[in-house]
Amino acid sequence: MSEYKAPLNDMLFVLRELAGLDQVAKLPGCEDVSDDLVQQILEENGRFSSEVLAPLNQSGDKEGSVLKDGAVVTPRGFKEAYRQFVEGGWNALQFPAEYGGQGLPKLVSTPVMEMWKSANMAFSLCPLLTTGAIEALMLRGTEAQKKTYLPKMVEGTWTGTMNLTESQAGSDLGLIKTRAERQPDGTYRIRGEKIFITWGEQDFTANIVHLVLARTPDAPEGVRGISLFIVPKFLVNADGSAGERNDARCASLEHKLGIHASPTAVMIYGEKGGAIGTLVGEENRGLEYMFIMMNAARFAVGLEGVAIAERAYQRALAYARERIQSRDLAGGAASVPIIRQPDVRRMLMSMKAQTEAMRALAYVVAAAMDAAHRHPDKTERAKQQAFVDLMIPVVKGWSTETGIEVASTGLQVHGGMGFIEETGAAQHLRDARITSIYEGTTGIQANDLIGRKIARDGGAAARALIGMMRGTEADLASTAGEDFTAIRESLGEGITAVAECADWMAAAYTADIKAAHAGAVPFLKLTGLVCGGWQMARAALAAKKRLSSGVADRAFCEAKIISARFYADHVLSQACGLRDTVVNGARGVMALSEEQF
Amino acid sequence: MSEYKAPLNDMLFVLRELAGLDQVAKLPGCEDVSDDLVQQILEENGRFSSEVLAPLNQSGDKEGSVLKDGAVVTPRGFKEAYRQFVEGGWNALQFPAEYGGQGLPKLVSTPVMEMWKSANMAFSLCPLLTTGAIEALMLRGTEAQKKTYLPKMVEGTWTGTMNLTESQAGSDLGLIKTRAERQPDGTYRIRGEKIFITWGEQDFTANIVHLVLARTPDAPEGVRGISLFIVPKFLVNADGSAGERNDARCASLEHKLGIHASPTAVMIYGEKGGAIGTLVGEENRGLEYMFIMMNAARFAVGLEGVAIAERAYQRALAYARERIQSRDLAGGAASVPIIRQPDVRRMLMSMKAQTEAMRALAYVVAAAMDAAHRHPDKTERAKQQAFVDLMIPVVKGWSTETGIEVASTGLQVHGGMGFIEETGAAQHLRDARITSIYEGTTGIQANDLIGRKIARDGGAAARALIGMMRGTEADLASTAGEDFTAIRESLGEGITAVAECADWMAAAYTADIKAAHAGAVPFLKLTGLVCGGWQMARAALAAKKRLSSGVADRAFCEAKIISARFYADHVLSQACGLRDTVVNGARGVMALSEEQF
Repeated sequence: MSEYKAPLNDMLFVLRELAGLDQVAKLPGCEDVSDDLVQQILEENGRFSSEVLAPLNQSGDKEGSVLKDGAVVTPRGFKEAYRQFVEGGWNALQFPAEYGGQGLPKLVSTPVMEMWKSANMAFSLCPLLTTGAIEALMLRGTEAQKKTYLPKMVEGTWTGTMNLTESQAGSDLGLIKTRAERQPDGTYRIRGEKIFITWGEQDFTANIVHLVLARTPDAPEGVRGISLFIVPKFLVNADGSAGERNDARCASLEHKLGIHASPTAVMIYGEKGGAIGTLVGEENRGLEYMFIMMNAARFAVGLEGVAIAERAYQRALAYARERIQSRDLAGGAASVPIIRQPDVRRMLMSMKAQTEAMRALAYVVAAAMDAAHRHPDKTERAKQQAFVDLMIPVVKGWSTETGIEVASTGLQVHGGMGFIEETGAAQHLRDARITSIYEGTTGIQANDLIGRKIARDGGAAARALIGMMRGTEADLASTAGEDFTAIRESLGEGITAVAECADWMAAAYTADIKAAHAGAVPFLKLTGLVCGGWQMARAALAAKKRLSSGVADRAFCEAKIISARFYADHVLSQACGLRDTVVNGARGVMALSEEQF
Repeated sequence: MSEYKAPLNDMLFVLRELAGLDQVAKLPGCEDVSDDLVQQILEENGRFSSEVLAPLNQSGDKEGSVLKDGAVVTPRGFKEAYRQFVEGGWNALQFPAEYGGQGLPKLVSTPVMEMWKSANMAFSLCPLLTTGAIEALMLRGTEAQKKTYLPKMVEGTWTGTMNLTESQAGSDLGLIKTRAERQPDGTYRIRGEKIFITWGEQDFTANIVHLVLARTPDAPEGVRGISLFIVPKFLVNADGSAGERNDARCASLEHKLGIHASPTAVMIYGEKGGAIGTLVGEENRGLEYMFIMMNAARFAVGLEGVAIAERAYQRALAYARERIQSRDLAGGAASVPIIRQPDVRRMLMSMKAQTEAMRALAYVVAAAMDAAHRHPDKTERAKQQAFVDLMIPVVKGWSTETGIEVASTGLQVHGGMGFIEETGAAQHLRDARITSIYEGTTGIQANDLIGRKIARDGGAAARALIGMMRGTEADLASTAGEDFTAIRESLGEGITAVAECADWMAAAYTADIKAAHAGAVPFLKLTGLVCGGWQMARAALAAKKRLSSGVADRAFCEAKIISARFYADHVLSQACGLRDTVVNGARGVMALSEEQF
């Protein structure tokens, strides 16, 4: 039985050595952030995640959330865990003090959230969706709306949901049909059916604040005619308490491959005449507001990839240490733990190295989000924001695809036991499998990357990224040792591959848009794995420096260099093949008529 | 809703153009095999698979087989389907006429089995395990044993199982503890617990013939002390009917990620004193007999990879044609089916091309199995057998890993709906996930490939393979057209990568056995994808020839060339990276101490 233990050593290493925690602590509004405080928060959150959230992960999967007489019953223990979550102040950690939050920077809330996701991904989706709703209200809510909803949502005593998808409108939200009719009192009556509403109904809190995309009667067609509304489950009394039930209900829950504890609701609005909603911001600008929030949401889902990979790695490692089978290839008559078998080590190393690479990139992007938000210098803010914008689809697309692969490898380490649900390894694969789909599929991320992030600025942000990576390559060149030589060669080839493909993309995007899109996902994977390799190289350099300075964590630093070496030979080695696929692959994708499939 | 339709066009193309059906028909014992007969069998089996087996696939997954009062209840419809399966003579198709079979060559039974597996993988495991038991008895059973068991098992009115694994003995069968004590009457009393017994108990047939690995009291330790026993569920009366219940029972069924309709039993033998068994062959040679059967079993599991990939492709294709979402990138205001989106096409092409490649390689190996078994010339038989032996771990390891990938891609094509179980796409991924584990994990296959198949003969079989592939490369060089140039370049690089790695492996196997094993799985993947590319190149050449001769299936032949082109740019392109991983990757795998993980 494997328990979740927060990987504090690696988290703190990345925060300090790669993501510049000390620099973030100097940003305006981060004056209270200190290394000691961060370590303390992470330790405490690690305990909470291990002791409260993780023990409910498997039972939650088995029981699932169920709908009884229109109400959702969450699995045993979830309600109590949520109560502790709120009481511990965890929900409020990342939000501004003016709404009752603790105002911690993204760089600190990121490892905190990673732990919740590792410990219990299904549970963690509830605060994740609340976060999305909070951000929308902070951004575009009226003062009255903020006052009514934000303190309770920041506290966590009310949760929030995002209602976008309808059965005919998934990736293409221009097709949504839910209607919103303005009433003389300024409120709206909402009617329609929404699907895939994560935590759309639950038994945790006294109220649920649904944010709903809908069309007003005179709205333009397509994406320019969508507005955003607040539709609370219970209307709010003048004293701020939850009052009368609104005309909104959960009609059913989906039977899903994974995240069984997270109720995925079909929500019906207005079957008794119209759910009462209030407009957020202006009419017809709902999708624009969604897009502003999307960076945070996509980043958070990318982090799920990191988190599930970490959890799957810990479980596989524990099994590989315990399971006695076959002899050591080096000789000896006794059966040994399977971690001695080279192929099992290869699997564990691929899990470990890729998880570290994903974590490093995600935290570095989190630090850039803080700088883009808080840095006093406007030019620096813009520069950081351009890096963030470029990296978000990469963190989302690459980390989720890799997270799925790592979870599947973890199952493989268990052999036949991995296929048995009681072992727990299969759940990670089932849970992970949604991450490359929701909040925009990998295809959607890749289209965003090549279109809005590469083609739109003529490849400028990509060139800036390549410049930074070349800097690391130069640092490697001046570092002695066979491992560093190998890392430098692989990284150099990878960077060249990204550069060639970025140029190709920028050109293809105008010359042959379908060819560009045909190569979009391979390009995203290439960019992700090279950026991951870049961070692993930075990590190896930092580890080498720490070793030279005679630090205490010698075993950790040596292992970091080997992780980077493994990553270079086993992951970065794929870069050239992906480049060939991007630049040559369009004909094979596009040449068949639809009838020839 | 997607129905399974047997891919007869592609199956017949591969049989005729790549696997040499006409040559197999000339082998001794295959005199009755004609092209017409084969087409007729495949059409009829296609109907049976679509109409009887496929409709039970999803309901079987949902209901699962359950244990009630010590007896297994299979999902609704399964018992009746099995009855039709036996009545149709399908079970007997591939077995010799002397036991009541139809004696069809492997090349013909292979597409037949592929269809069962595509239509209902869980169901297909029952005849698969019976086949393994039949082969063991044909090979080493006494005349009395053959007479008692084979006619009923060939007919399918009794099924067979293979009892190898125990909780402490999975990949390492040397650790098994089940005991067999010889009785004065020549029978044995079997006592022990076996796990992971596929279709170990069912409600289909009047008897179940368990083949059980066990140790006699005086047996040597480890793998040289294992014997094989027949332990029927019901002892057999003198008249051949099932009589008294034996001391063997199903204690529980596993809760698995997939193949829910297939009961995976914990079997307890001898809790009332000893199950009565009879020895197969000689004492202490049980594992050797298992190894002789293993080629067939591993091949069959490899074919499951092909079959699930085909089924997942058909489902994804149907969805991509139906689902209306977003505009065509080429312009136009209307929403279009998602098959118009380049990334959806890319996913479909990757499913299609890889499925075709896996099928082609599997059928070519099936033809070689027929020649190795039946060819009049001893040298030719040995040559074919060497090819078969080399290819079995590749077909098993590569096709199952690729089948899982294709099933996952199929889920992705469905977007959010793919995560919902009702859609059916998720089941294929869940079912597929066992294939790279049972009958020897991918790691076990890779160790077999580099050890028994490469190092043992100093790379001779590998060099023969490379010679054949170079022949195809030369054929490509003399074929005009940009597609053929691209295919030739990618294939040529791939062959070189295999050749370099095979040499490296043969040397490393003696110089640094752990380094060899560290690269074994990447080498297996490399070999698989290049052999797949070889077959796709052969297919493209054959298609080109058919086009030149003005055949009727123009659209099919053109599509085949494009599939091969896609495969070259999107799959063969990975070869160089894998070569680098094999030859450079061992340090990253082996350098950490166990404590550093």
